[in-house]
Amino acid sequence: MSFTVTPQSMSFSQALPLQGGGSLRDYHLSYETYGSLNAERSNAVLICHALNASHHVAGSYAGQAKSEGWWDNMIGPGKPVDTNRFFVIGVNNLGSCFGSTGPMHTNPDTGRIHGADFPVVTVEDWVDSQARLVEALGITQLAAVMGGSLGGMQALSWSLQYPEKLRHAVVIASAPNLNAENIAFNEVARRAIVTDPDFHGGHFYEHGVVPKRGLRIARMLGHITYLSDDVMNTKFGRMLQSGDVLKYSTQEIEFQIESYLRHQGDKFSEYFDANTYLLITRALDYFDPAKAHAHNLTKALARARAQFLLVSFTTDWRFAPARSREMVQALVANQRDVSYAEIDAPHGHDAFLLDDPRYLSLVRAYFERISLEARP
Amino acid sequence: MSFTVTPQSMSFSQALPLQGGGSLRDYHLSYETYGSLNAERSNAVLICHALNASHHVAGSYAGQAKSEGWWDNMIGPGKPVDTNRFFVIGVNNLGSCFGSTGPMHTNPDTGRIHGADFPVVTVEDWVDSQARLVEALGITQLAAVMGGSLGGMQALSWSLQYPEKLRHAVVIASAPNLNAENIAFNEVARRAIVTDPDFHGGHFYEHGVVPKRGLRIARMLGHITYLSDDVMNTKFGRMLQSGDVLKYSTQEIEFQIESYLRHQGDKFSEYFDANTYLLITRALDYFDPAKAHAHNLTKALARARAQFLLVSFTTDWRFAPARSREMVQALVANQRDVSYAEIDAPHGHDAFLLDDPRYLSLVRAYFERISLEARP
Repeated sequence: MSFTVTPQSMSFSQALPLQGGGSLRDYHLSYETYGSLNAERSNAVLICHALNASHHVAGSYAGQAKSEGWWDNMIGPGKPVDTNRFFVIGVNNLGSCFGSTGPMHTNPDTGRIHGADFPVVTVEDWVDSQARLVEALGITQLAAVMGGSLGGMQALSWSLQYPEKLRHAVVIASAPNLNAENIAFNEVARRAIVTDPDFHGGHFYEHGVVPKRGLRIARMLGHITYLSDDVMNTKFGRMLQSGDVLKYSTQEIEFQIESYLRHQGDKFSEYFDANTYLLITRALDYFDPAKAHAHNLTKALARARAQFLLVSFTTDWRFAPARSREMVQALVANQRDVSYAEIDAPHGHDAFLLDDPRYLSLVRAYFERISLEARP
Repeated sequence: MSFTVTPQSMSFSQALPLQGGGSLRDYHLSYETYGSLNAERSNAVLICHALNASHHVAGSYAGQAKSEGWWDNMIGPGKPVDTNRFFVIGVNNLGSCFGSTGPMHTNPDTGRIHGADFPVVTVEDWVDSQARLVEALGITQLAAVMGGSLGGMQALSWSLQYPEKLRHAVVIASAPNLNAENIAFNEVARRAIVTDPDFHGGHFYEHGVVPKRGLRIARMLGHITYLSDDVMNTKFGRMLQSGDVLKYSTQEIEFQIESYLRHQGDKFSEYFDANTYLLITRALDYFDPAKAHAHNLTKALARARAQFLLVSFTTDWRFAPARSREMVQALVANQRDVSYAEIDAPHGHDAFLLDDPRYLSLVRAYFERISLEARP
């Protein structure tokens, strides 16, 4: 059992202008905090989440077994991001289905559930909303903003949108934008959801159904891209589900990998919101800070003032090391202070959530350095 | 306009025993031939097809524009597989939806359309059925059996099932079995089809509908795996569908890659049979000649007597060069005569169908060698 934590919520009455036009009013953000803010308010670390995660980053809920946060191996007392030293904030993004205002909530303008009418939110919008939360918590400068994958994009965007409000950006298993193949996978997942007859144009809540078929397909496909070819071969290979005898069936489970994927798809379809899936994959697609700078990433990152730690994993083909190197090169070209590690790990994109000792030691060492700086 | 060809059909009254048990009776095979069989009957080349292809390998149908066969750049008069020298046979596999007996045909035992009850057929079953066709055409030994991808698996299996009936096996962009990731992609595609409400347990014909949603998803996903990351970035990158202005929509087409994939999915769903898709992907999953030899590929290939040409493409991540090298090593260990080329091509798995000059020259040179041998 990990340390005990309690989720909190903060309401914002001032409308949040959105990159896609319009604004969101009367929204709230779910968040959690771990550790204590020091007197100088200089030891706060914001954690940004990726697709299938939330503000529940670390610790457990009282009386709930197996309720550890999604990055509990990374964050907590004595962990690499040590909550005995840092005041860590986990925040749930707008549009999520885990607490913050999202498609499942009621639109104050119409009195109806948002559903597919929830506005498209971007990484930049999320960062703006997070900045308001951080300000409301009385913090003028964060020691660090940290995230993996889509969370890493938010950390990078923080350094561009609020360059003076963070001292460090920790960008793990991320990219300066998605490539065509990543957008393609997102699009297949979205089409599977949208064309499920139970999607009802995104207003399935009113019909008392959930587009589970589409969500299952989306999640199965996602899982293939989170794992490496290597780890799939090691964990599943061509092993059969039942002994050594083939069933010669196109619909029954034959290989263990099929069973694994179906199980992951079934689980996901029970709790994840279809509109949230569309919104979050779209935010991934859209993120591209270089676009406004004639696709020149060096120019795009010139605004950054933070120091950077970037980490990538050799077998991650979704956010490949080459994409991290692009960011490193652009930061170096801007004479930023950058640490970069390419971790030789077999687990693909998932590696950023796993217990790789070299990876965890590296993050620990980096945060120990930050901790020394943060002292008065 | 290419040369003109005419599809043919041959009926078989003797039941074909199937690897999965039972047999198929009163079936027919659609096929085409190009060129002339020489007096010695020594110049016949059998072409095996992959997922989305047929017996219409080369040439065009009279009066039909754009009706070139799927390997028309490879096969024909003066082409690398020169029909002025070779008698080339294209055959449609059992279970297909392009002519040979398949799920859309009537089961002679029940008088009903087979649908999902069509027996699961394997690469080995296909080779058995092809061997009967070849025999019926009066050919006791083929100069070569040739195929790419799943077609390459058939060529390899020919060399093991009928080692004396072919002199050469040409195995392009193929593998000795699918790895876990490939099975995983197939399974996602199958689940998309099977869970489409219009699938009706595989008996959708009786309901006058087609599970187009599932077929679209399957095809979109397939297309991602046929292309390389490189070629996707070159052809589509992050280019938007309409100018430079974002729509901020989760359902509208925003990026060109989305438009391409949707178009491919729509086209495919208009003509491809859902049950055929299930059958063919399952045949891919099952193929594994080493399984019966304690997963020792060298032992599995010891039966082969043919000479081999293997070709792989550097950016093919579905049937990667490493998989071809496994076959080459196993053949060399058996002291077989093997030529192997790894073509540096950007197009991914699709490269085996494209006009890469080095690739086409290589195949041409190999068949010129065969042609010299085939002379009396």
